[in-house]
This record gives sequence, C-alpha cells and structure tokens, in this order.
Amino acid sequence: MKNTSRNIVLQPSEMPDKWYNIAADIGGKMLPPLHPGTLQPLDGASMSALFPDELIRQEMSAERFISIPDKVRELYSMFRPSPLYRAVNLEKMLGTPAKIYYKYEGVSPAGSHKTNTAIPQAYYNKMEGIKKIATETGAGQWGSALSFACNHFGIDLQVFMVKVSFEQKPYRKMLMNLWNGKVEASPSIITQAGRNILAQHPDSPGSLGIAISEAIEMAVNDPATKYSLGSVLNHVLLHQTIIGLEAEIQFEKAGDYPDVVIGCFGGGSNFAGISFPFVRHNLDGKKKTRFIAVEPTSCPKLTKGKYRYDFGDVAGMTPLMAMHTLGHDFIPPGIHAGGLRYHGAAPLVSVLVNEGIVEAQAIDQLECFEAGLKFAQTEGILPAPETSHAIAATIREALKAKAENSPKTILFNLSGHGYFDMYAYQLYQENKLTNFVFDDALLEKIEGKTHPVVVSR
Amino acid sequence: MKNTSRNIVLQPSEMPDKWYNIAADIGGKMLPPLHPGTLQPLDGASMSALFPDELIRQEMSAERFISIPDKVRELYSMFRPSPLYRAVNLEKMLGTPAKIYYKYEGVSPAGSHKTNTAIPQAYYNKMEGIKKIATETGAGQWGSALSFACNHFGIDLQVFMVKVSFEQKPYRKMLMNLWNGKVEASPSIITQAGRNILAQHPDSPGSLGIAISEAIEMAVNDPATKYSLGSVLNHVLLHQTIIGLEAEIQFEKAGDYPDVVIGCFGGGSNFAGISFPFVRHNLDGKKKTRFIAVEPTSCPKLTKGKYRYDFGDVAGMTPLMAMHTLGHDFIPPGIHAGGLRYHGAAPLVSVLVNEGIVEAQAIDQLECFEAGLKFAQTEGILPAPETSHAIAATIREALKAKAENSPKTILFNLSGHGYFDMYAYQLYQENKLTNFVFDDALLEKIEGKTHPVVVSR
Repeated sequence: MKNTSRNIVLQPSEMPDKWYNIAADIGGKMLPPLHPGTLQPLDGASMSALFPDELIRQEMSAERFISIPDKVRELYSMFRPSPLYRAVNLEKMLGTPAKIYYKYEGVSPAGSHKTNTAIPQAYYNKMEGIKKIATETGAGQWGSALSFACNHFGIDLQVFMVKVSFEQKPYRKMLMNLWNGKVEASPSIITQAGRNILAQHPDSPGSLGIAISEAIEMAVNDPATKYSLGSVLNHVLLHQTIIGLEAEIQFEKAGDYPDVVIGCFGGGSNFAGISFPFVRHNLDGKKKTRFIAVEPTSCPKLTKGKYRYDFGDVAGMTPLMAMHTLGHDFIPPGIHAGGLRYHGAAPLVSVLVNEGIVEAQAIDQLECFEAGLKFAQTEGILPAPETSHAIAATIREALKAKAENSPKTILFNLSGHGYFDMYAYQLYQENKLTNFVFDDALLEKIEGKTHPVVVSR
Repeated sequence: MKNTSRNIVLQPSEMPDKWYNIAADIGGKMLPPLHPGTLQPLDGASMSALFPDELIRQEMSAERFISIPDKVRELYSMFRPSPLYRAVNLEKMLGTPAKIYYKYEGVSPAGSHKTNTAIPQAYYNKMEGIKKIATETGAGQWGSALSFACNHFGIDLQVFMVKVSFEQKPYRKMLMNLWNGKVEASPSIITQAGRNILAQHPDSPGSLGIAISEAIEMAVNDPATKYSLGSVLNHVLLHQTIIGLEAEIQFEKAGDYPDVVIGCFGGGSNFAGISFPFVRHNLDGKKKTRFIAVEPTSCPKLTKGKYRYDFGDVAGMTPLMAMHTLGHDFIPPGIHAGGLRYHGAAPLVSVLVNEGIVEAQAIDQLECFEAGLKFAQTEGILPAPETSHAIAATIREALKAKAENSPKTILFNLSGHGYFDMYAYQLYQENKLTNFVFDDALLEKIEGKTHPVVVSR
C-alpha cells in the first residue's frame, strides 16, 4: 500500500493519563480573576457556589500535569484516542507541497471536542454529590456534550441555548432532549437576566454572554445547582489538552512535527486543546511552531478587541477576567458559527497572544463556508461552521506554501462535524449568506465598560 | 484503567488486503442468474452493458480470496480499519450478562458501510475508462457513498432516489450534490420505467425496485454509461466482507469470539459484510455461531417471501435471480428505514437461509426506533433507522441472555449513523409513527409472477 499515513492510529492503552496544565509554564504572566464587587483577587471559596471543589482546584492549579481519573479515561475510550488523519486529497486538490494533518474530534458522542471536558466536569460534580447543573450553549455542541455526560452520571441539566442557534439548528435541541437535557432558548423568561434583555430587546438573537448570565443566575439562586462552562476557563482548557497530547504521540509515530498548528477560536477551548501541548515545546525553547487562532471577522476579540478585565457574561455576574474582549455587552451578528459568537477570550490564550506566541486571524463567513465545502468534497467529512474557520486558515497556509514552493507541516483541529448544520450549508449554496462588517466605532465604547489591566501588549 | 476493551483498535497496516468470497465455499448450492428472455444461465458477456469487466469477473468468481487493489486500500484508510466497540453502557442499562460488541461503519464519508463497495466500484469503472454511472438509492446512504467515490475518481453520477426517502431526508440530496452527484426523485419523468409507473400511480412513494429499473434503463440506453448497484449482487457483498474480516482480527485481540452475529437486512450487503467471514468458520465446522438477519415486518422477504427466480427490479430489466422475494412489483409502505424497502434478497444470503445457517427475524418499526434511541442514550451514537433493526434484535438477544442468566457474546453491525434521519426520530418521539401490518394475502400473488426454482427449503 502506497500510503498508510492517512490515518495515524493510537491504541486505547496509548491514551495519555494526564492533562497538561499550561498555567505551570506561563503562570507568571497570568493575572488573577477579580471579585466583581471588591475588585480583589478571587479566592477559591467564592467560586464554590458555582463549581465543585476539584474543578476549582484545577482552575487555580500550578501543577504541570494533572491525572485523568480512571472513570473519565474509561468513558474517553468510547471515542478516544481520536484519529489523526492526513488530508491527502485536499493537498492534491490545492496542489500544495504542504502536508496537512487534522485531528478529528467529531467522533465523540454529540460530535465535537466538547465531550472531552463534559465528561470530567460531570464526573467531578457527581463525585461531590451534585444533582443538577445549569449551563449555556451556542450552536449546541457544548449543550449536547454535557447532556450526554450528565445523563450518564444521572445529573439533571438545564441548558440555555442562544436563540439564533436554537432556531437555526432544531435537531440540536432534540439531541439534548434525547440525553434528558432541558433546553430553553436564551434570552428566556425563566431568569431575571433573560427578562431584562427581553424587556429592552424583545427580538434579541441572544449571545453566549447572555446565556451564561442566565445559567449562572439559576445556579446562584439554588444551592443544589452548580454551573458548568464549556470554554474560557483554565480547567476547561486543561481537559481539552488530551487532543494535543494525543496528536503529539501520533506525530511521533508519523515521524513528523507540525510547523503550524491551527484552531478556530470562540472562547478558546478547542484551540487550546490542540495547541497547548505543542506550545509547551516552544516555551522551553525546543521548537518554533507557529500557532494560529482563527476567529470570525464579525466577532474579532483577538484581532481587534482590547486586553482588559471584563466580565464573562452580559449581566456582569462572573468574576472579572483579564482577557481580550469586545466588551461584555457586545452582541455579535447571527453568523452560523454560533460557537464563535463570544465577546471574550480564554485568559490563558490571551496571555499567549500578548506574548506573541499565538497569532490571531479573522476570516469572513463566506470564505469559511467555501473552505468547509472544499474539505467535504475532498476528505469526505462535512465540518461544523465553527471548524470551517480553521480550515479556511489551513487552506491559506497551504496556498502560501505553494506560492513559496516550500514544504511545511500543518496541523488543524477538526473540532466537530457539521451534520446538524446542513441548513447553514444549504443557505450558503443558495447564496443566501453574507459577510458581516465589524463596526470599529464599537471599540471606542469598550474602555468605559471594562477595567484596565497594567500589562504591556 | 479498569476497562480498555470498549474500543478495539487496528492499525491501518493490519487492514486485510483481501476480500472473502463466500461463493468459493457455498458455490455448489448457488443457482445461476438467468437471462430474462431465454431463461438460460447468464454469461459474463451479457452483463457487460451494465458493469466493467473486473466486477463481472468478481461476480462470477469462485476464488476464496480476492486482492484489494492498493489504491482502494489507500482510500479505505481514510476511515478504515473501522472501530470495534464494546457497548458497556448499553449492557449495564439492560442488566444483561451478555457482552455486546458493535462494528461502527458510520465513520466513513457519507456515514455508512456503503462506502466500502462504492470505492472499489468507482475504481474499477475508472480503470476501464468509464465516464458515467447511473444508480438507485433508498435512504440515500448508497447514493451519497457512490457520489463521494465517483467524485474522487472524476466519474459523472446520476442517482435515482426513492421518492418517499427523497422527501423524508432532504439533506441527503444536498450531500450527493456536494459530491457532484445528480439526483432525481424516483419514479421520475426522465425514464420510460418511471413514466410508466407515474401513469398508473401518480402518487407512488417509489421503491428500490423502481429506482433500479430507472438506473438500468439509463445505462442500457447509453453505451457510455454503466450501472452500479449498492447491494444484492455477489461482488457488492464481497467488498463488504472487509467489515467482518477486520472484526475477526479485533475479536482475536480482545480474546473473544461472537456467539451471535446480527445485521439489519435490506438487500443483504451490510449483513453479509459483518457475517460472511464468521459464517466461513461455521461452514468448515470449527464454530457454531448464530447469524441473524433482521428485516422490517412491513417488508418480510426472508421471513415470509418465497425462494423463487425473480427480477431485481420492478420493470423486469435485470436477470432473474434465485432469491427470497415478495414479488418484484411489491411496493413496501413508506417506513423510515428506506434502505430496507427492497422486495428481494441477496442470492448468497438466500442460500444460507435455505441451509439453516442464517436465521431471519422481522421486527416492527416502533420497536426499532425505541431500540435506536436506547442505544443513543447509552452509547452516544444515533443509529440510522435501518441499523436500529439490528439493535432491536441485539437487545432481544441480550434480554434473553439475562432471563436465562447465561453469558454470551453478541456482535452487531452499526452500519450507519442517523444524523440525517433526525426528522424520523422527531416523528417517533411525537408519537406520529405507526407499525405496518404485512398483508399475507399478497403472498398468494407471488407465484404467478416469479419463476419457480427446484430446491428444497
């Protein structure tokens, strides 16, 4: 057989048994989250209304590696190790000398990388006797992953799903219901935060920031309910590093190493998952890999936002986090990559952007859909609209390699499949989608709403 | 880690390099296909209007193993070896002492086992210079798999898609179009066979038998166009044996062997694919595995049909094949398992049913949907409605093992995922689906339309 390296396979026994905690290596650059009332650094105790103790411990940990519990590894083995594929057909179609690899996270229940953190989050809640969790979801990937995990552990789940996605992707709700998740379109009338938004903007398409406010309100008002977040926070990014840690072993088997690592960027979790284990080798000076986080032009927190202390949600219920932000009340237009419609960015990734280790790119919706279709045509997997941002950047890099006639090795994270996003692809093929221009005037308003941080950019 | 055997993984280098041709072992029991005009055994030459030479050679071959071309193995490695999973969560939910394994074919482009034969069929056509192929599809699994393969090899494809499925599953058409397949709802007005049906039954929901007539007519009328079939024929079943051959190696690694092998049954290809390599060890007396083919109660060719010479299509354009049939003009009700709506059965499987080696079961639509949902709830994969028939039978066997308090090892083929069948699951959950009663009076009519064969049943 000419080419067996289209599919680099790991045995379950080769699955890493620890997550990589990048805070151990860049902790000195991190600014602590602040209590929104006192503006003082937050202690673990004040997070305990929202999270179980073990997740708080992980959130604040400086240990470099954190063990994955046996039970979590057992459930991971339902779909992990995930495949690392070589996109030979796409390379040929582009006529590029670049080698393109992708890690396929769509093999999980619910179809995306989100299951990697849903399982441990539900597990730690279960271990501490929690009976109910509230959460938000954008496009539904996170909500369905957490529904699956909570259903497995017998935990009730209330999901607030961003309204524009709720309407675009009705089958996502069915999937959550299948796993006994309850779903409300957000803004909803069942929380004060939701009612406040609806009073001012009855037609609000919703946003992740609003849905987070609703879920947190529900958790805060009920001592028996905890909150769970699908991205942004340190412990969420930690769990996702299983992606890059596996990829690292797979690259060793393939006798290769990535020159460029690419992930789409919403809150930062899939990007962190694929990149942090490789970033580590840049940090210790052994490698010079480039890392590209790809966001939608319509929601450009990394490329245009400011590095400030800001809330993670619209209502201002979360701690203040030092991150790239467009302002916590920014409502992105209703693009179909609902998982990328978030005003802020994971603090850990924000630091790496500040340090010049991670590059950011913003790409328009139409270029991304075209890239997603090209990928499906050649490689046979239809990517989620979020993921198509990573593919668009990959194609740009591959064509650059062609123009420069220089081989290079590209790795991107195929974070989820698009089989519940067929309506979006249909609209694209019928020329019914447009690009959105970001209004730079909005940037002026960020200052007044956020808290400055003293850092060099 | 307590349990790594949820996922038994093969390396691409362990993928079998030959298909298993069961005709070598049961050829003596096989009756030849007959020319519909002369009623004489068909020779290869009279099939050459429809198929490339190599596929005709495979169709008539008595070799036990047939080499898989390097190029086909390379494309297989885009998704093969496919995983063999242990359904631990389902076992726990059922409280059964049985071990349940499933081979997951939904990982392929287009999402089902059909890609296993689509790739070699397109490849052999390409090798012989063919520029265009016509085919039928039921639920769209076959049509999209062949669209993917033809697009890869630069072959034009015309798909006739059974009308009831065309309307139930609009995104399947999009997927075929994505891979440049042209799709007509069948019966269509672009063939005489389609127009004849529409003249008599303007509201016909269509059937696989009608769609086959349309595709064959197109191929026969155009010397530059060949025909391709997604099931029933020997060479199609041959290509699918890659499933069972991989499973055999995976069971060896797991230190286990199936007591029961289960597959859903439309024309026979996924059932043959998972079972034939294991049937082989029954045939040579080394094992006593049970094999269960599961069909819908509404289309019960194996459990109620007659073993007769009959046409493979409604218009009577195919050779006469000795098989279990409900009569070639039987139009099954519009169940959502569109891939199982076929009046006949693969001749190879029919012989094994006659010999008592393969058992057949018919299961109602509602029991199957319930089984599919139970599986998704526990194992996280939503099966295609066709596949849910295999799961319903698996659950029956597992509960029998529980009642008898006797452990056993069950293997079933998860032939495809159901992510394009969400509408069907929605209808089921809204209590809008019913069972269909098969009218036994129809059996009386079979005799007059088919040609008897002299065999003992």
